[in-house]
Amino acid sequence: MDIYMQAALAEARKGLEEGGIPIGSVLVIDGEIVGRGHNRRVQQGSAILHAEMDCLENAGRLSAADYRRATLYSTLSPCDMCSGAALLYRIPRIVAGENRTFQGPESYLRSRGVELAVLDDAECMALMQDFIAAYPALWNEDIGV
Amino acid sequence: MDIYMQAALAEARKGLEEGGIPIGSVLVIDGEIVGRGHNRRVQQGSAILHAEMDCLENAGRLSAADYRRATLYSTLSPCDMCSGAALLYRIPRIVAGENRTFQGPESYLRSRGVELAVLDDAECMALMQDFIAAYPALWNEDIGV
Repeated sequence: MDIYMQAALAEARKGLEEGGIPIGSVLVIDGEIVGRGHNRRVQQGSAILHAEMDCLENAGRLSAADYRRATLYSTLSPCDMCSGAALLYRIPRIVAGENRTFQGPESYLRSRGVELAVLDDAECMALMQDFIAAYPALWNEDIGV
Repeated sequence: MDIYMQAALAEARKGLEEGGIPIGSVLVIDGEIVGRGHNRRVQQGSAILHAEMDCLENAGRLSAADYRRATLYSTLSPCDMCSGAALLYRIPRIVAGENRTFQGPESYLRSRGVELAVLDDAECMALMQDFIAAYPALWNEDIGV
């Protein structure tokens, strides 16, 4: 696992420690992490702060040129909302820790020109599997089920 | 214009008064407005609070059953991010004030089963046209250009 996915995983663990859903994300531009975030549904009573959205918000208002050089890392395959945010800003690359727990609109992302890599990482997966077993209703709420 | 689009337009005007981008949104369930919002890029330095996102956030954590009966109103055709949020929560109906200023992924939304109506409303359009003429860079930032 590279240092960026490690940073995303650290965010996911931070979320878990806070009593939240353990999904983390970082935004990387020119090799530097410019934003970090994790799911804040529980912590902030938020319907929109998935990890990737929190990360993009924490990265702040960036220029179109910055987004065009960015890579969005997430411990989990981005959902429709987070994929849509990447499309809005034309972020060209997404790296997902795994997509067995949940799979977003991956083929649509690719059809729109996004380069998407899925690491199939065991640590990312274990974190979610343990969480979902303990809090199935919370997880379902997070994915609109 | 129905009372819901009027409420969305009132949100857009509120945003303009605050020095923000004049796009407004409301979420309606069973005839009742359960959330209102407007674009807060300027006001909160936000990269994610488009009107529809702000509206969904202000509506709070709703059940899947609630979202399934909802209609999302926006003064402007929803972008990739906001369309994605509607898809995440399987909101079945979207009403947009206009789509001449900007057109989101409308055919994709329809292909995913969303019923989308576009009102082609002159007031919604005038509000955006005047704003874009005055602040073209801010508008471009908002749509990732």
